[in-house]
Amino acid sequence: MTPKIVRYLADHQPATPCLVLDLDRVAANFARLRTALPDAQIYYAVKANPAPQILGMLNDLGSRFDAASIEEIMMCLAQGARPGTISFGNTVKKASAIAAAFAQGIDMFAFDSAEELAKIASHAPGCKVYCRIAVGNDGADWPLSRKFGTTVARARDLLIEAHGLGLIAYGLSFHVGSQQTNVAAYQAAIARAAMVFTDLRTQGLDLKMLNLGGGFPVRYRDDVPEIEDFAEAITSAMNAHFGNHVPDMILEPGRFIVGDAGIVASEVVLVCHRDPEDERRWVYLDIGRYGGLAETEGEAIRYDIRTAHRSGPSGPVVIAGPSCDGVDVMYEHAPYAMPMALKAGDIVTIEATGAYVTTYASQAFNGFAPLSEHYI
Amino acid sequence: MTPKIVRYLADHQPATPCLVLDLDRVAANFARLRTALPDAQIYYAVKANPAPQILGMLNDLGSRFDAASIEEIMMCLAQGARPGTISFGNTVKKASAIAAAFAQGIDMFAFDSAEELAKIASHAPGCKVYCRIAVGNDGADWPLSRKFGTTVARARDLLIEAHGLGLIAYGLSFHVGSQQTNVAAYQAAIARAAMVFTDLRTQGLDLKMLNLGGGFPVRYRDDVPEIEDFAEAITSAMNAHFGNHVPDMILEPGRFIVGDAGIVASEVVLVCHRDPEDERRWVYLDIGRYGGLAETEGEAIRYDIRTAHRSGPSGPVVIAGPSCDGVDVMYEHAPYAMPMALKAGDIVTIEATGAYVTTYASQAFNGFAPLSEHYI
Repeated sequence: MTPKIVRYLADHQPATPCLVLDLDRVAANFARLRTALPDAQIYYAVKANPAPQILGMLNDLGSRFDAASIEEIMMCLAQGARPGTISFGNTVKKASAIAAAFAQGIDMFAFDSAEELAKIASHAPGCKVYCRIAVGNDGADWPLSRKFGTTVARARDLLIEAHGLGLIAYGLSFHVGSQQTNVAAYQAAIARAAMVFTDLRTQGLDLKMLNLGGGFPVRYRDDVPEIEDFAEAITSAMNAHFGNHVPDMILEPGRFIVGDAGIVASEVVLVCHRDPEDERRWVYLDIGRYGGLAETEGEAIRYDIRTAHRSGPSGPVVIAGPSCDGVDVMYEHAPYAMPMALKAGDIVTIEATGAYVTTYASQAFNGFAPLSEHYI
Repeated sequence: MTPKIVRYLADHQPATPCLVLDLDRVAANFARLRTALPDAQIYYAVKANPAPQILGMLNDLGSRFDAASIEEIMMCLAQGARPGTISFGNTVKKASAIAAAFAQGIDMFAFDSAEELAKIASHAPGCKVYCRIAVGNDGADWPLSRKFGTTVARARDLLIEAHGLGLIAYGLSFHVGSQQTNVAAYQAAIARAAMVFTDLRTQGLDLKMLNLGGGFPVRYRDDVPEIEDFAEAITSAMNAHFGNHVPDMILEPGRFIVGDAGIVASEVVLVCHRDPEDERRWVYLDIGRYGGLAETEGEAIRYDIRTAHRSGPSGPVVIAGPSCDGVDVMYEHAPYAMPMALKAGDIVTIEATGAYVTTYASQAFNGFAPLSEHYI
């Protein structure tokens, strides 16, 4: 929580649940990443938080944009982004969305299947395309499963096919998984990608770009490597595997740019015991898994939660949301402790919730409205 | 899918994703339950689907309402429901929500802890309260975990305490879990509840009401017991355990009333292979876990999915949502087969999605708007 957020909460006491996000921190995170990897082009992952205040500021700072949908593309354009700075990064797109993006001047599209490539060739003729390969997600707290990416062998064939379809076979992408805490994951993925570049060069096809995706972690409850550690690992791997042919680099950070810039303020609705045999109290907040904290599924992302109780003893708790749904429990297995003095009506802050919260809130689960948003 | 929905889809070809729900089926389900259990008062669980068209029609049919939040209470009142027909059934409520409900004339509140009871006594003095006990959820596809309910012993103490606080110790409730396919679950819960009634009567406290919750199942891909089977089991258990002192019965059906009245129409965005070793195709729809199909988490609720391909061979598939999120996969382990001819642009219908879909949709996950809704 930044000093600016502390002041804002004290001065305004906004109704809960709400997100309060410090735009200065967003700018600082962007600058830090640019300094760490000056040769990379940063495409902010809009899905992390598409607030117009964030998109507008990042556009002014020279960021580009990675969009998951035509709706996100329109949000970027509305904030002044030029079409040439937007990548349509979802490898699964409706034909109508591709056509609409093309009509807006978007000229770079991701794919990872022959079927998607055919759609792009039909509806965005002559555009740049890059192929996503599947890479290891070990070390990521929010992995990407088998849903995306193709094999190295298939990527080669598909990029040649892209060229044959009149598209610009522009490059390759991978994603090591979100909240990735292992710098070696990027190095292994770069090595794998480099093989495709080399193979295709021998076949006369010169790829220009490597998209390293996002995944850079934010500090929640545990320390994570610094962004400079990732930058160093990436730079040395790029040099080692590409030598004199280092391609243009694209990054797609989302969580890293906005995650630690925001906090959620929430009211405690109830504190009570459930099982007489269990010393743990149940703490029910006015935000839950369906109110925006979707990444607590499986207790994958473990947010730091703070209270105003500065002294006095603490004890173990289970932390749940306000709805009638039994699945709406955030932390039952992860060890969480909260002050014994905690009671209904208290405000808690859930730290580093600037990413993947606002748009993920259900529109009216159990009748509850989505959290309000304050960009300061 | 009802004939009325088939006609509506053919005539209007609504943009996808969308819910189309046949109100006649809602009325028929309500009538069927009332016939099966004529002595029970039906409180529709608003959270299942709070569309004004549904609330208004059910109010006209004589339904009462189980509300999870002050927002749901206001929705019921807006459709003409009298305050006396609304139960505030969430055992976890903000003090401000209790006060607001009391100001609207709501006079029945659920609780399951001393802390909640104190809030109700302060903000809704003199009202009727009922205590929720925890019961077994075995047999439920969407169980309620340890989040709600207290022990039988504690319920006795709390109801006596309620009386001491000037509240009307009105009754007891339980919930056997949602999509409960085992009729015996209700019988075991009734037996447990009856002990509390008997014990309290010996202490001079006469409870008037037993709330049996909801949980009645809908047919998805597998047959489930008929509602008449549940009715028979409940009636015999009530007579066996309460004898000449059968209390007023309340039911809180949600899924049973609206579940099979609606379908979701969705467009296929992409069909492709992922792993070359895996014969399964990946089918990406324009609705996913975050677009309303929240109950596919853990593949708990397995919807029947239909296509317009009437003949030709089928093959195994994985079914995923349209977002860039790796977790947005509906069915990867449950065996699903779809026509080999299925392709991007085809429309599929996801059957029996009238409950727990619309309000559960994220407001803008990956930029995607919530599904549209058609009540016919």
